[in-house]
Amino acid sequence: MLDNQSAEQIFAFNPASGKRLEPAFFPPTVDEIETAARLSEEAAAEYATWPANRRAALLEKIAELLEAKTEEITERAHLETALPHSRLHHEMERTCGQLRLFAKVIVEGIWKEARIDHADPGRRPFPKPDIRSMLIPLGPVLVIGASNFPLASSVAGGDTASALAAGCPVIVKAHEAHPGTSELFGKSIRQAVRELGAPEGVFKMVQGRHETAAALVRHPAIHAVGFTGSLRGGRAIMDIAAARPRPIPVFAEMGSANPVFLLPEALESRAEQIAAGLHASVTLGVGQFCTKPGLIFLRKGNGTSVFTEKLVHLMQSTPPGMMLTANILASFEVGLERLRSTSGVRKLAAVRGNEGQAGAALFLINADTFLENAEELGGELFGPCTLVVECASHEEVLAAASRLQGQLTATIHGQPDELNYYQDLIAILRRKAGRVVYNGFPTGVDVCHAMQHGGPYPAASDSRSTSIGTRAISRFSRPICFQDFPDDALPDELKEANPLRIARLVDGRLMG
Amino acid sequence: MLDNQSAEQIFAFNPASGKRLEPAFFPPTVDEIETAARLSEEAAAEYATWPANRRAALLEKIAELLEAKTEEITERAHLETALPHSRLHHEMERTCGQLRLFAKVIVEGIWKEARIDHADPGRRPFPKPDIRSMLIPLGPVLVIGASNFPLASSVAGGDTASALAAGCPVIVKAHEAHPGTSELFGKSIRQAVRELGAPEGVFKMVQGRHETAAALVRHPAIHAVGFTGSLRGGRAIMDIAAARPRPIPVFAEMGSANPVFLLPEALESRAEQIAAGLHASVTLGVGQFCTKPGLIFLRKGNGTSVFTEKLVHLMQSTPPGMMLTANILASFEVGLERLRSTSGVRKLAAVRGNEGQAGAALFLINADTFLENAEELGGELFGPCTLVVECASHEEVLAAASRLQGQLTATIHGQPDELNYYQDLIAILRRKAGRVVYNGFPTGVDVCHAMQHGGPYPAASDSRSTSIGTRAISRFSRPICFQDFPDDALPDELKEANPLRIARLVDGRLMG
Repeated sequence: MLDNQSAEQIFAFNPASGKRLEPAFFPPTVDEIETAARLSEEAAAEYATWPANRRAALLEKIAELLEAKTEEITERAHLETALPHSRLHHEMERTCGQLRLFAKVIVEGIWKEARIDHADPGRRPFPKPDIRSMLIPLGPVLVIGASNFPLASSVAGGDTASALAAGCPVIVKAHEAHPGTSELFGKSIRQAVRELGAPEGVFKMVQGRHETAAALVRHPAIHAVGFTGSLRGGRAIMDIAAARPRPIPVFAEMGSANPVFLLPEALESRAEQIAAGLHASVTLGVGQFCTKPGLIFLRKGNGTSVFTEKLVHLMQSTPPGMMLTANILASFEVGLERLRSTSGVRKLAAVRGNEGQAGAALFLINADTFLENAEELGGELFGPCTLVVECASHEEVLAAASRLQGQLTATIHGQPDELNYYQDLIAILRRKAGRVVYNGFPTGVDVCHAMQHGGPYPAASDSRSTSIGTRAISRFSRPICFQDFPDDALPDELKEANPLRIARLVDGRLMG
Repeated sequence: MLDNQSAEQIFAFNPASGKRLEPAFFPPTVDEIETAARLSEEAAAEYATWPANRRAALLEKIAELLEAKTEEITERAHLETALPHSRLHHEMERTCGQLRLFAKVIVEGIWKEARIDHADPGRRPFPKPDIRSMLIPLGPVLVIGASNFPLASSVAGGDTASALAAGCPVIVKAHEAHPGTSELFGKSIRQAVRELGAPEGVFKMVQGRHETAAALVRHPAIHAVGFTGSLRGGRAIMDIAAARPRPIPVFAEMGSANPVFLLPEALESRAEQIAAGLHASVTLGVGQFCTKPGLIFLRKGNGTSVFTEKLVHLMQSTPPGMMLTANILASFEVGLERLRSTSGVRKLAAVRGNEGQAGAALFLINADTFLENAEELGGELFGPCTLVVECASHEEVLAAASRLQGQLTATIHGQPDELNYYQDLIAILRRKAGRVVYNGFPTGVDVCHAMQHGGPYPAASDSRSTSIGTRAISRFSRPICFQDFPDDALPDELKEANPLRIARLVDGRLMG
């Protein structure tokens, strides 16, 4: 456990060279965790009272300061993750865009869900009081960053942006795979906090590993957790949070196999095009996306051999790629070995991955074998590989779909008429997934109002929440209602004259 | 545990006579639980596709059939609970009103949170897909009814109404204190299900005790739990749900002490009026409301002795009342004994409660004693008693408020100017409570759009949810999004032409 003496050093490693990167970073001591938690708690009360435009200014300032450091950040991130510069630049744009989108959302104010039910003193049998409600911040939020999006899902990522937008102080436990990148982010956010005159405790970043995360999840000052990572890590955090004297919500996005269903006519008419799209999606970022399609279901028939041949060819000619960390590469290799050793699994393509690089791999099984091993084969496997499940009939496709666990995404390729014919399949996928994609590919999660990035367990801890898109803000807030309050003692959101001019539900009718 | 042989009988007891009421009821066998769960799962898929107006018709039919049985239901409920007929008639109206309100809400459709973000194929660096999202039902919901509202928070209560409205099949585990009343409710709901042509599994009621509830909470078919009851019972359910292979959300409303703060000027100007109102609220329904004010904080000064004398007089002249069950009476007596034996607690009034009846009781302590025992004294105690905490200064009031656990409600009595002066107190209470009441009393929870009946733990398991009011429906639903779907394959809620004419967020703007 943690103590004040033996603070273990954390170094980043360059995945390309395997070499240690300076400097050393240090997990917080017990006292430092206490101080961070106390400051966070103290800041919560004041920060909760900040008007939306001031919180929006903080988010915009963070974006501005980060943008000014784009070169420094992407350079360090490249060293720590081996992700290409172009990708890191896009991710930086996404990170800043996300901060600005939340700034816009909170000023517009719809997200506050303001509701007013006017009094009716003459109502029988009991007079009706005046009741007004809105969302308020939960309190300090712990964010545990992801390794695979070192910018957009890490220190200043969607969890931090939405929690700060909601009015919650944030403590980030940085991912140990990119501590230097995290440090640069942390500095910019702290600078923005100072420039906006926010209490120091509004933001704190700490370095550390699992035990630091666990100590923070247990801490009484923490009111909610945002996490992106593995099922094992997410479930461990859920269990700690549920066992606290005061349990807290955990919003963990834990990934999934992201099944793709190829309907017969689509396969017949555009087998090569679908194979090319899938190949790009499977190997994007060396397969290190939580939305990577890891299962492809098709019905043996016209087009399947064209599809398979094309996909084999593309996978086989994929250059090996550097993975984010040695651990992720090791997990990928264990996963491949498990697939190879499963009876009934045929290897269709396998690129040799040498010197710490991952080679693309493609496997094929029939529906019976999938059903026999649905539990093991249905989980997430990071890396540039996918598994084609060949079904002999539509019934087999439905049986396989029914056995899937909760998924972030499910994808269907079909001709327009086929969607009507396969309503039964769509009905199953609606129950399984947070997002259903038609004639597209699941990688690439748009940051917008309608996005749902989450899904039934084990894709996420709570299917009712999203970790990407503007709806993410509601995770970190709760309703409060005021009964018979005088108008001038109400928050502006609920005052009769609606000074903030926000949309509200007044006596059951949407106004504004 | 449960088996198929030893089905234990359940009898209701008349609290007034202590006599057993016929007939016997039986908890389900293991096989019966399996059948109920399977039917519920099977019904979920079809029921989820029902259009809102058909689900609304089901809710209205339930209300209609229940109303037709008002006399029979209230008569049996009176025997089983000793609650007066007039109260039971009001509760019946509330129950039916609640069902009809949810019917109205689902037809209006705002609750679905439909969102549309249109495609932008020309966007750089990546084209923007068409993304549309809305709420869909979670799946079968387990409702564990309360004893203190045998109609409005039981078999056809708010949890059942909101889950059925959301599109989820419901299994109710009836409270063992009013099995006959529950049976009448169950029959009416089943009849409505048949008349509307719904699959049988849309509704099932079982009798039983804790072990039946626990078996259902563990069952893989169950996707969420609604519970109203004690902290001990609620926490046990939370722990079981969190330990499942697939954890599920638990929405447990577990009650609180509902502190009341009397500001100096209010006390000076209307001490007797406040005492009379508090007395009525504390003793309403023999103190068996989860919103019963159990703590009264005041600052010693002008008006306090008038207030205390008046409250002592009123409490002392309260006739003893019949409690709902022998267990609740026993808990009340244990709680009183704990108060009496706490050093520094003064008994101001104590009505002798004989023959199974509870007598009103009033206690007084100072702020120091409260702070020393905040943990034990701050919890819920069902029954006609309350504790006055006398503070020497405003700082003591704030210190006491800061030590409170999560609360369903917090109440302030003050003159209009005082609210501005005591913003620090209001800020604390906003963090502690789900509902803040001004110059009123917390008992009486209006069923409306803005109501928040919940609060930070331990008042409720999840402060982000309410168990009363129309917002309760969102507990049992989750967002799903559709990417690039052809218009005719989308649910009506998301079709471009908006055939249901519901309010939607289109490209970030509220429409309709």
